Amino acid sequence: MSISSMPSLDEQLALINRGAEEIIPEQELIEKLKLGRPLRIKAGFDPTAPDLHLGHTVLINKLRAFQQLGHHVIFLVGDFTARIGDPTGKNVTRKPLEEEQIKENARSYQDQVFKILDPELTEVVYNSTWLEQLGSTGMIKLAAKYNVARMLERDDFSKRYKSGQSIAIHEFLYPLVQGYDSVALEADIELGGTDQKFNLLVGRHLQQIEGQPPQVILTMPILEGLDGVQKMSKSLDNYIGVSDQPNEMYGKVMSISDELMWRYFELLSFKSSAEIDGFKGQVTAGTNPRDVKVQLAIELVDRFHGGGAGQAASEEFTARFKHGAVPEDVPAVALTVPAEGIPLANLLKEAGLTASTSDAHRMIKQGAVKIDGDRVEPGKQLISAPSEHLYQVGKRRFCRVTVS
Amino acid sequence: MSISSMPSLDEQLALINRGAEEIIPEQELIEKLKLGRPLRIKAGFDPTAPDLHLGHTVLINKLRAFQQLGHHVIFLVGDFTARIGDPTGKNVTRKPLEEEQIKENARSYQDQVFKILDPELTEVVYNSTWLEQLGSTGMIKLAAKYNVARMLERDDFSKRYKSGQSIAIHEFLYPLVQGYDSVALEADIELGGTDQKFNLLVGRHLQQIEGQPPQVILTMPILEGLDGVQKMSKSLDNYIGVSDQPNEMYGKVMSISDELMWRYFELLSFKSSAEIDGFKGQVTAGTNPRDVKVQLAIELVDRFHGGGAGQAASEEFTARFKHGAVPEDVPAVALTVPAEGIPLANLLKEAGLTASTSDAHRMIKQGAVKIDGDRVEPGKQLISAPSEHLYQVGKRRFCRVTVS
Repeated sequence: MSISSMPSLDEQLALINRGAEEIIPEQELIEKLKLGRPLRIKAGFDPTAPDLHLGHTVLINKLRAFQQLGHHVIFLVGDFTARIGDPTGKNVTRKPLEEEQIKENARSYQDQVFKILDPELTEVVYNSTWLEQLGSTGMIKLAAKYNVARMLERDDFSKRYKSGQSIAIHEFLYPLVQGYDSVALEADIELGGTDQKFNLLVGRHLQQIEGQPPQVILTMPILEGLDGVQKMSKSLDNYIGVSDQPNEMYGKVMSISDELMWRYFELLSFKSSAEIDGFKGQVTAGTNPRDVKVQLAIELVDRFHGGGAGQAASEEFTARFKHGAVPEDVPAVALTVPAEGIPLANLLKEAGLTASTSDAHRMIKQGAVKIDGDRVEPGKQLISAPSEHLYQVGKRRFCRVTVS
Repeated sequence: MSISSMPSLDEQLALINRGAEEIIPEQELIEKLKLGRPLRIKAGFDPTAPDLHLGHTVLINKLRAFQQLGHHVIFLVGDFTARIGDPTGKNVTRKPLEEEQIKENARSYQDQVFKILDPELTEVVYNSTWLEQLGSTGMIKLAAKYNVARMLERDDFSKRYKSGQSIAIHEFLYPLVQGYDSVALEADIELGGTDQKFNLLVGRHLQQIEGQPPQVILTMPILEGLDGVQKMSKSLDNYIGVSDQPNEMYGKVMSISDELMWRYFELLSFKSSAEIDGFKGQVTAGTNPRDVKVQLAIELVDRFHGGGAGQAASEEFTARFKHGAVPEDVPAVALTVPAEGIPLANLLKEAGLTASTSDAHRMIKQGAVKIDGDRVEPGKQLISAPSEHLYQVGKRRFCRVTVS
């Protein structure tokens, strides 16, 4: 993109600031933008798992914004540290990964990320390229560039040190390694989650020592999960996966609170702030927030499943819940049961409709279970064989069960 | 040396313990000695300066004892860290050294060390051999094997941290690097000065992690300099250099206090403890300690200048100081002075006999200056030209000065 075609400084600042937690220092960002050349925007990702969720995409969306403004986006795969993992073996989430697994995760990441970023305009780099060349000598020289007291000021280190929890010395090297990536890439701006603030600042420090103009750092908030309280995370099961199926993704978005919806609009939607303000105005004027949420759900499904997928999911959702219709893709299960039949609660558990029989009992008691569309009254019920029925738990869980 | 020819356990322990500050743990030393095989004895030296003084030889003497007992001595040249130096640039004594300079220093060390150790029985190794191969990955894995809190317990680190003095992170890596040397060498015992205790223990720790029997550590005290108070050091000018000339070395030994003499006997002499006890008995019985000191001085001069050199130095010393004779190797200096002549104090300074003219005035006042053997009375004195005289300051400084 030529200089003349870049948006104005104010337009750029508005887009860059949207949803951002901190920009440090903001004045330097302005000076860099005034240079009028495409800036080098760095964000690093650890290829430790193959699947991304929407929480991860908050950063990627911001990268996309920079890309749209004409800047040069560098997608850094942190394969070097992934290969080492956590050498103390204490952190099970940081097991060393095999070369092949890392490459596969990185490929999978790119597939997902390129639904947001323009592959043609994205530079993908692997930090092992320069970190391996450092050698043991280079690593010692790197370690000389930061001191113990400042490192211990990092929030989590400080807490662990004070509470007597062990900090292995290599943990002091990782922020330096990440900072050195910025030196190697001559990054102008580095993006990260708020939890990355310290590490991003180390990058600034190392660049200054190397005589480079220090990078501006931009932190993005950690996205809340479906519950609206805890951070989106796979282990908390409150996430929307980038590779969730259209109906699932649509349904999950429709399930969030109205308050969380505005948060997701800001951090996940590509609609302009003006458009979003328009929606807010409509809701204030009496529009059902649900109708606005539909816009968000369609946009997100379209993003990851192609244009039209959102509308299709929306129609199926409406058909299913507004008119009580059964979805098209109901799973089918066949059970072999004793001659006297099987208690309904056990059947629901076996069919995967509830997590346990006690869960099933609770759902029956709440009137949340239907057989062939008819609500099941509380009380014990035996399902005899042979039979075939459509079982439903809550609004979205269906299963066709053949008992014999 | 075969097992059968090794001295008994008690003999070994007596020689190993002589002068040692600490052996940790002593029980493990006994167990290792009982193995009956030559143990691998490691001591590391930083090739940062070309010249050794007798303070450095305390460790080397202990290595010699192990060699005499039939053990395998490994003389480790720490060229890896010498090449890196102090990357913060704060420590001027740890400037990075050029490859060539390191090799030259190491060669010079060996020349000096092999006046004590048997070159045939000494394995000389350079730690760059294995440390370079570690790579940046290996360095991180090594750093994972120790934790921050324990490292901060090291005496000097603890003091600096508490007083707010900076500790660069690479300083945490050096003890690990030194410890890794022990792993690479599979050391059974490591020797070091008392100031090295922490680092030697890190070696034990790393060997345990690697599944090796941990090394026993043996610390030797830091030798006092000629003043008997401060540690021997070049910068304090209280040292006896390994390459000091025979007369100088002899004179320096003769200048030490009687108390310090016994300390030097223990740590520097190769005479047996029984012999030294014999000397002590003689002194108690009335022998002048000076006569015993002569034995020590002769032994040390012989060690570094060959058999007979000590006796020669002794005879010259006696001739010079007992009979007031002039030594054979008096330096000669020629000075060109103004027509009116030169004040004596200035001449003494120009001839290098005093550090300054005020120093010269003080010596004259004390009656410590002689011209051609005649004591100079206090008061100003002009030396006229042309003239040639033998000038003497104190007992040992002579110069023949021609004035024209």
